Amino acid sequence: MKKAFLDHHFLLQNSSAEVLYHEYAKPQPIIDYHNHLDPAHIASNKTFENITELWLKEDHYKWRAMRANGIAEKYITGDASDRDKFQHWAETVPYTLRNPLFHWTHLELQRYFDIHELLNGKTADAIYDRTKVQLQQSSSTALGLLHKMKVEVICTTDQPTDSLENHIAHKNSNSDLKMLPTFRPDNLMIIDNPDFLNHLAKLEEIEGKEITTFENLISALEQRISFFENHGCLLADHGLSQLYDIEYSGKNLDVILLRRRANESLSPDEVAQFQMATLYELAQIYHQKNWTMQFHLGALRNNSNRLTRMLGADAGADSIGEFEQARGLSAFLNRLDDQGKLAKTILYNLNPKDNELFATMAGNFNDGSSAGKIQWGSAWWFLDQKDGMERQINTLSNMGLLSRFVGMLTDSRSLLSFPRHEYFRRILCNLLGQDIENGELPNDIKWIGNMVEDICYRNAKNYFNF
Amino acid sequence: MKKAFLDHHFLLQNSSAEVLYHEYAKPQPIIDYHNHLDPAHIASNKTFENITELWLKEDHYKWRAMRANGIAEKYITGDASDRDKFQHWAETVPYTLRNPLFHWTHLELQRYFDIHELLNGKTADAIYDRTKVQLQQSSSTALGLLHKMKVEVICTTDQPTDSLENHIAHKNSNSDLKMLPTFRPDNLMIIDNPDFLNHLAKLEEIEGKEITTFENLISALEQRISFFENHGCLLADHGLSQLYDIEYSGKNLDVILLRRRANESLSPDEVAQFQMATLYELAQIYHQKNWTMQFHLGALRNNSNRLTRMLGADAGADSIGEFEQARGLSAFLNRLDDQGKLAKTILYNLNPKDNELFATMAGNFNDGSSAGKIQWGSAWWFLDQKDGMERQINTLSNMGLLSRFVGMLTDSRSLLSFPRHEYFRRILCNLLGQDIENGELPNDIKWIGNMVEDICYRNAKNYFNF
Amino acid sequence: MKKAFLDHHFLLQNSSAEVLYHEYAKPQPIIDYHNHLDPAHIASNKTFENITELWLKEDHYKWRAMRANGIAEKYITGDASDRDKFQHWAETVPYTLRNPLFHWTHLELQRYFDIHELLNGKTADAIYDRTKVQLQQSSSTALGLLHKMKVEVICTTDQPTDSLENHIAHKNSNSDLKMLPTFRPDNLMIIDNPDFLNHLAKLEEIEGKEITTFENLISALEQRISFFENHGCLLADHGLSQLYDIEYSGKNLDVILLRRRANESLSPDEVAQFQMATLYELAQIYHQKNWTMQFHLGALRNNSNRLTRMLGADAGADSIGEFEQARGLSAFLNRLDDQGKLAKTILYNLNPKDNELFATMAGNFNDGSSAGKIQWGSAWWFLDQKDGMERQINTLSNMGLLSRFVGMLTDSRSLLSFPRHEYFRRILCNLLGQDIENGELPNDIKWIGNMVEDICYRNAKNYFNF
Repeated sequence: MKKAFLDHHFLLQNSSAEVLYHEYAKPQPIIDYHNHLDPAHIASNKTFENITELWLKEDHYKWRAMRANGIAEKYITGDASDRDKFQHWAETVPYTLRNPLFHWTHLELQRYFDIHELLNGKTADAIYDRTKVQLQQSSSTALGLLHKMKVEVICTTDQPTDSLENHIAHKNSNSDLKMLPTFRPDNLMIIDNPDFLNHLAKLEEIEGKEITTFENLISALEQRISFFENHGCLLADHGLSQLYDIEYSGKNLDVILLRRRANESLSPDEVAQFQMATLYELAQIYHQKNWTMQFHLGALRNNSNRLTRMLGADAGADSIGEFEQARGLSAFLNRLDDQGKLAKTILYNLNPKDNELFATMAGNFNDGSSAGKIQWGSAWWFLDQKDGMERQINTLSNMGLLSRFVGMLTDSRSLLSFPRHEYFRRILCNLLGQDIENGELPNDIKWIGNMVEDICYRNAKNYFNF
Repeated sequence: MKKAFLDHHFLLQNSSAEVLYHEYAKPQPIIDYHNHLDPAHIASNKTFENITELWLKEDHYKWRAMRANGIAEKYITGDASDRDKFQHWAETVPYTLRNPLFHWTHLELQRYFDIHELLNGKTADAIYDRTKVQLQQSSSTALGLLHKMKVEVICTTDQPTDSLENHIAHKNSNSDLKMLPTFRPDNLMIIDNPDFLNHLAKLEEIEGKEITTFENLISALEQRISFFENHGCLLADHGLSQLYDIEYSGKNLDVILLRRRANESLSPDEVAQFQMATLYELAQIYHQKNWTMQFHLGALRNNSNRLTRMLGADAGADSIGEFEQARGLSAFLNRLDDQGKLAKTILYNLNPKDNELFATMAGNFNDGSSAGKIQWGSAWWFLDQKDGMERQINTLSNMGLLSRFVGMLTDSRSLLSFPRHEYFRRILCNLLGQDIENGELPNDIKWIGNMVEDICYRNAKNYFNF
Repeated sequence: MKKAFLDHHFLLQNSSAEVLYHEYAKPQPIIDYHNHLDPAHIASNKTFENITELWLKEDHYKWRAMRANGIAEKYITGDASDRDKFQHWAETVPYTLRNPLFHWTHLELQRYFDIHELLNGKTADAIYDRTKVQLQQSSSTALGLLHKMKVEVICTTDQPTDSLENHIAHKNSNSDLKMLPTFRPDNLMIIDNPDFLNHLAKLEEIEGKEITTFENLISALEQRISFFENHGCLLADHGLSQLYDIEYSGKNLDVILLRRRANESLSPDEVAQFQMATLYELAQIYHQKNWTMQFHLGALRNNSNRLTRMLGADAGADSIGEFEQARGLSAFLNRLDDQGKLAKTILYNLNPKDNELFATMAGNFNDGSSAGKIQWGSAWWFLDQKDGMERQINTLSNMGLLSRFVGMLTDSRSLLSFPRHEYFRRILCNLLGQDIENGELPNDIKWIGNMVEDICYRNAKNYFNF
């Protein structure tokens, strides 16, 4: 018998899965320990003008789909009206069938706006109007949207030079929602990035001293880590192509920094040295603070000069890269582990060919100090869809301990992305349910349901110390 | 309840899939926009002596299977009689169980010859005789076989120096079947290939001038592109290990060409420079002509000197290679895109570990000028089987727009390979049908059926301008 | 209807699979042509003290799981009592749900000890006691345990300098079990391994001459191969990161050896040259002896200095590596093939991204001399689980001849690992059964059952000449 599209038992293909999801997974609050939400939206409890602002303004996933569908840039990121942009997105939606956008779109319409129609060119206008009305209501402000989804904690992603004013303001507002910053020093670590000098200047200004040596830099970053810590930060994050197994000397690092300050060009080897040296110093500080460090590895970014010129980074021209991962990860983690200075760590890969490499790499460095110390992170970005999640869950099961997994995160810029936690939970319960039905797991719903709760909520709460 | 082998609903595992296939997919004609058929066979409407000539003479897939089965070369490519060769192939068939050859073999016997028995050592003789009789009939000549399969367009793969005499003759015959050439300049672009000088000499002869500079070469190739265009060509194709992100200068290219003409050996770097320089020039011409350019990347060819000596290229000693793909593809496509000179492009990978890399790479360069401008091509060669197709369709769905896919091609040397379109269509319909049954797609057969028709036929027709 | 956990039809999801397994697969004896059992345990028919000694003492799979579960090293490899270690393992078991350890653990308790309860913290004590009693019985000595599993042949993995005294003693005992040695020269071939000089000294002592040239070394190894041959050896095995496509000269090899003897450090290039030169010489001898040579490629070993210092190699700090495989394999196999000196070969990859590369590489070098001459080996180590086996079986089916596969091996240090043959057989039958049910294979149980028997037993028996 056919199931209705996106119904109560969506993605749940057997009765064990239904019980696991509805009785164990669904009641859990959401901890979203990594995302790219704008803290100002939360602090100000922003009201959104319309669904285009909320849905399309920054969503390069949707932009890519529209371009692939032959929509002109004017209606994507250009100067068309918000209504026109929504119309073109709506006309694209039926063409996204089987893409995660198709599920996400309709799940978000259901969960946030109680809209159960399919979005397409014909329904666009009415849905635009209906959501516009709803968005003026207090249940659909930034905090209202998060509240609807039972979000308990969010960790934003922030520059070391950020003032954290929004985090501070939000904290002072006594909201039920915990919003914590995450320390993301990429721009001060990947020394050839075009914004390095700006970030350095800002860091100098904040710290009130010149940064002319590697030691100066680390010392300034350490100050910022303490500042972040004082405002509740518990995580660091790093978006890198790869880690390198590379030698470097302090003296060289100073020269590299000076040459970068003088706008001289650096060799790839020098850039890699600087990255790894900085990372190594920071990693020890993270360990000392009992933070968790995250590595998002393997994206090939800004492939289209045309789009980068037009829109900057995150324009929808990023793709899955092909970088050597094993040697650098092994050398870096081993160096820290060998000195008893390896912090809790989450490794995320973008190229799924590296799934097994990452899953087993994580297993090399558990030291018995805590359960699940080294995590292989949830399916990320292009992999954040049913197949990708199933492969991550299955590979993690086979090569590690699924039971100790800290679970899902949105990694999103959008306040409407939180049903992805639901999506993940349904997929998780479905896989476990199937195993129960097939006799590959014992039929002990309570025990397995308890594990589901752990993965959906408690593991993260305990692991990160929220 | 068990399904019968290869029955009416073969590969269709639910009722939605059955409707989608039988009512939407099956009625569509076939556009086979890339294959290696011999144009002379079509132009002359060849009658085949027996099934060995048609099936085994050039099919290195079957040769590999026979060698793996311990059959002596005499019965594969050697001097055994056609009947003996067929006998040894037939004895191998049961050992190919679960290999695509097992399905293809029986599908081809059913569709072309209405033979529903299993081929094996015992049935070989009767089947040989029965097909021999049928092959003498007009319904089983080259054109007859294509007509049976409702083939509307075929695009062969041709050397730049080809006279296209067969294409011309066929066109003049006013056949219903459209046979178009494809421009494949590999032998004039991969400068260290053993046949380069022969092809160059032939090109010089045709163009009536010496080719001693890179510019001469491009100019001569441009002439040939125009010639191909005049005879209906709409596609180019390139069979390469990989693209390179490499610098070159015009002066160097001339030196490289002269040294090759003098039979001096070239460094891998020089070979790569020459390849990329040529490709870049040709790609701009393709764009100007509104052609589609195809890249078949990642084969590791001619691994066995023994077989190459004995049989030349395409001897069944090719396998899946391991080449860096991301950087070169990104640099090359970006360079063209940045100048507004990127033609419609189809990227095919041979190593399935690169599926996601290719699927997302294609997504970087859509510019809204047409739907599905940059395509990630159908599962190819070793991947041209149920798992491979399912993975390609699923990954394309997750990372691009399946709805805009130009679909299947045979890439085959054999006139009996056209049921692979049916195979693909059944698999496509089965996946979509499953999603409908599971509530992962709306139960709107008409809408999804329409999309099936697009993927099976209309998308290709529109995309290539047939 | 839910199936009970690990019941009679475990992993068999349709009636064809049930028949194939119970009537064809299950009755077959076991040939375990590659493992790491201790020959002394067999020769002495060892009685084990308790299940900790048998199960936990050397099983780095379990160690990894315990560390990931936050168990202190004391209870894993440290000085805790055997009962305490078992208790901590038992407490970890529920957390291994979906990991192969969960299935293996309970399968082994069922098959060897007739224990059908789940192992966890509460059942640990009783199970420890119950197995302790059973282990004192003759049906649970080393030979008793193998006999229970109908093991007919085992091939251990042995240093070239091994005296084979245990193999000789066992042979003289007239046991029904055939225990053959396997020649594994890694330590004398990977010249920078820390034990090279010890092994060289031992080899010099055995052969009674100094080994100061490459030729000396090959000649001494050839002596050892003959010695192994005299004691029934039919296989060689090599555990390497990768093969290299590299040039070398005899003179250089002598220099490399002398420098190593002088404890001078060698470049990676020199190490690679020495490896490939040695391998090439040995491979020709294997061919002459009609041995089978195995290559286990792609592990990244000893990632944690901390664990290596504490426990040496095989401490549970190995993971899936990322090495170039195609070029080196092609060059090496082609060189031998080209001279008619390529022995039967089995290629095993550890990184599943290389599955298709390996499957198709094997297909390049079949020469019709015997069925299935070049094999792509069974899913290994981290891949030795349901998903990994299914992928190996499916990819082999698609890209080679499953029917000619020599099948499963334990690759294990543990006498309790033999139910993995059962696990493999169930998975194989399930896949074939599904294809029959779906109409993707003919409903000819006898034919397919016969092929199941081949893969489970007869192919290996014939291929290796047991």
